[in-house]
Amino acid sequence: MAPRVLVIGGDAAGMTAASAINRLVDDVEIVVLERGTYTSYSACGVPYWIAGDIDSCDDLVARTPQQHRELGIDVRLESTAESIDVEGRTVTWSDEAGTHEISWDRLVVATGARSVRPDLPGIDAEGIHTIKDLHDGHAVLDHLGQGVRRAVVVGSGYIGIEMAEAFAARGLDTTVLERDSTPLPIVEDHVGEVIAKRMAERDVTLVTDAEVTGFDVDAEGRVQAVRTADGTYAADIVVAAFGVTPRSELLPDAEKGVKGGIVTDDQQRVSESEHVWSAGDCVVTLDRISGGLVHLPLGTHANKQGLVAGESIAASLGATWSRRTFPGVVQTAITKFCDLEIARTGLGEEQAREAGFTPVVATIETTTRAGYYPGAESMWGLGIADAQTRRLLGVQVAGGQGAGLRIDTAAMALWSELTVDEIVMTDLSYAPPFSSVWSPVQVIARALTKELSEGSPHPA
Amino acid sequence: MAPRVLVIGGDAAGMTAASAINRLVDDVEIVVLERGTYTSYSACGVPYWIAGDIDSCDDLVARTPQQHRELGIDVRLESTAESIDVEGRTVTWSDEAGTHEISWDRLVVATGARSVRPDLPGIDAEGIHTIKDLHDGHAVLDHLGQGVRRAVVVGSGYIGIEMAEAFAARGLDTTVLERDSTPLPIVEDHVGEVIAKRMAERDVTLVTDAEVTGFDVDAEGRVQAVRTADGTYAADIVVAAFGVTPRSELLPDAEKGVKGGIVTDDQQRVSESEHVWSAGDCVVTLDRISGGLVHLPLGTHANKQGLVAGESIAASLGATWSRRTFPGVVQTAITKFCDLEIARTGLGEEQAREAGFTPVVATIETTTRAGYYPGAESMWGLGIADAQTRRLLGVQVAGGQGAGLRIDTAAMALWSELTVDEIVMTDLSYAPPFSSVWSPVQVIARALTKELSEGSPHPA
Repeated sequence: MAPRVLVIGGDAAGMTAASAINRLVDDVEIVVLERGTYTSYSACGVPYWIAGDIDSCDDLVARTPQQHRELGIDVRLESTAESIDVEGRTVTWSDEAGTHEISWDRLVVATGARSVRPDLPGIDAEGIHTIKDLHDGHAVLDHLGQGVRRAVVVGSGYIGIEMAEAFAARGLDTTVLERDSTPLPIVEDHVGEVIAKRMAERDVTLVTDAEVTGFDVDAEGRVQAVRTADGTYAADIVVAAFGVTPRSELLPDAEKGVKGGIVTDDQQRVSESEHVWSAGDCVVTLDRISGGLVHLPLGTHANKQGLVAGESIAASLGATWSRRTFPGVVQTAITKFCDLEIARTGLGEEQAREAGFTPVVATIETTTRAGYYPGAESMWGLGIADAQTRRLLGVQVAGGQGAGLRIDTAAMALWSELTVDEIVMTDLSYAPPFSSVWSPVQVIARALTKELSEGSPHPA
Repeated sequence: MAPRVLVIGGDAAGMTAASAINRLVDDVEIVVLERGTYTSYSACGVPYWIAGDIDSCDDLVARTPQQHRELGIDVRLESTAESIDVEGRTVTWSDEAGTHEISWDRLVVATGARSVRPDLPGIDAEGIHTIKDLHDGHAVLDHLGQGVRRAVVVGSGYIGIEMAEAFAARGLDTTVLERDSTPLPIVEDHVGEVIAKRMAERDVTLVTDAEVTGFDVDAEGRVQAVRTADGTYAADIVVAAFGVTPRSELLPDAEKGVKGGIVTDDQQRVSESEHVWSAGDCVVTLDRISGGLVHLPLGTHANKQGLVAGESIAASLGATWSRRTFPGVVQTAITKFCDLEIARTGLGEEQAREAGFTPVVATIETTTRAGYYPGAESMWGLGIADAQTRRLLGVQVAGGQGAGLRIDTAAMALWSELTVDEIVMTDLSYAPPFSSVWSPVQVIARALTKELSEGSPHPA
């Protein structure tokens, strides 16, 4: 009998793993249990679908359950895994017909993450949405269809600022409540201030240092307002963007890291069993710069980890394709607020200090193209380097069209642990429609060399 | 008496060196001899100025002679160096007043490059332009002002395709004659074909395999047509974009490389004398991948080499700022034809073979943003890797907005000699407005891993 691979979770990580195994192993049965009704979709696209930039949620689905089935993967929708017997190699799962048990030879836990819903008064009111999957997108769009006017977004992480853009694009009176002093806490205040300024320009009301204490709810159970320590914000619709937390409870005995995320080896295998892998938003992963574990629920990591897990399982089933490993991350991320592109890679100043470095910070302002070329827009940047080794530790940028993708150049430099001195002299592209003669990443690196040399006229 | 630094050439390399010395050394006299009337200008901007994208050539001048003088640099315009006595540390130079001699303690040869004008019948006719500096730009604009209709561009390197765009933007009937079978010979045919297609879409006539044999000239000495072995192309204005060659004849005894470019060490010092430095379009530089010397007349290298030369001279005069070195290049370049962005880095297939690698090539097609996101455009890419080491050797791309700058990510990967396997797993940014979940450089790297594994199911 063919070995059975059971995959729990049918989005990026799970279906990438399933597809890799399906491609690499001839004689295998692959069963996928998916709680919802979609597979292989772009959760990252949901805010843009709500904004109206994308016509249909079908556009966000890379491969439907039916397409996966046609390739030979047994996808079971609205099927929820309830518990795992790691020793006995079974999973108990349920659907509307009842509770069932299924045995497996190899297991992939790709359960993803869930939106955090803190225990605040009124949090369960109708009209308070979280944004995690396509079902959430439908709920928000249905709600918008009822004719709402005032939106409040709680939190200004990626989802928060993307939903603020979406609501503003829909013509809603939009307010963002952020606990910190600047929006998008994953960037330093210097970059956050650029975002705050753009929000004001786009008539999005940003309230910083706002500690949400609860929600006002009407007699029908609908949200009416968001309360903070300092004020009350009337709302017809609320997005609660408090972040996400790994769905790791199906493996109670597995080693856990930050936020309870599952720890795996570099083939995405959990330490508890040589027959169990985990990938995607439910795992923690190595940060290559700090050496610590981080929880970064991003589609790009889910895809790569799914591929690694799938290849590792295929190899364990005799496939001859060599196994890749997942080498960790450098915390690269990109988003935008309206026409302001925002990106980061590496460590922030505080993260760098916590990791034992001696961070030095430099900020710059440049343009997205040669200053004299039509369409050149302002771009702000920030770099962090280690004073001891002169190694680049992090870069953050914000600016007009073309600013955001500069982060990949910095990410690649971080990946190879380059010093700021070496980065200044790397061979990056230059032509007036694309760049000043010193690329923005090099402008940041040069600014860092100057900071680092202060008090030390002979840099190494 | 203060030591005297003499700089021959007042553009990117020369003025960057002069400025660095001026900044770092307190007691020094800096004299710059410049043949023309401009300093520190963007030659790369000339085609866009001619196209009408940039209003005035003043926009292309980063710092005027007067601004340099106010900073204490003695800039002498319309002053041509005639010969160098390296032993005696003097330079003979001329201006309209006659011939003079000036002594120096440190010399920077930043004489740049000149446009190649092959010895073809009629090449000196009026109306045949080369594009190298602001004076050339004025000449073309004056000519266009006389009301011309038909433009022929000979050659389709950067300057050739940028001038084709400029003439087309000006509404001229534009023909490009290229000796090779596809335009822009610095990219592989696969990318060249994308450019050829876009030229056709923009009503630019591209004639490939065209060997120019001469020019028809009228009784007043004006060009009338360009002749090739296969046909004659009527022309009111011609740009001869045959490439450039280093102006290195002032140092007849210096070691020379490709095209006669001056060889320097990694501080831009010439081997002939410890008191002579050279930088910019007149030098050859190390290609880090092949290990050979290349002549790459680009502003980005001129700036960096000028900075390195200036800091080296400053150090030789006792400045305590440490010297940087110029580490060589990976042949990164970017340009565009209308809305098609085109870029390359690393070696081409033939270059890779000549350098002793076993090149494997993969081509891909992807989109500039997530396929479903508004504004996503087609993007074509090509990667070259070494079959022995699986190391990335080169990447080339062409496509819509955002395609070109992807090259910097590849350039940074080449810089650190990453394998294609490692690149697949690097942490690059992803969000639907910016990228598919696999960044284009990773799509190329994945395609290469597949190519490399053919016939070898166990890649290293």
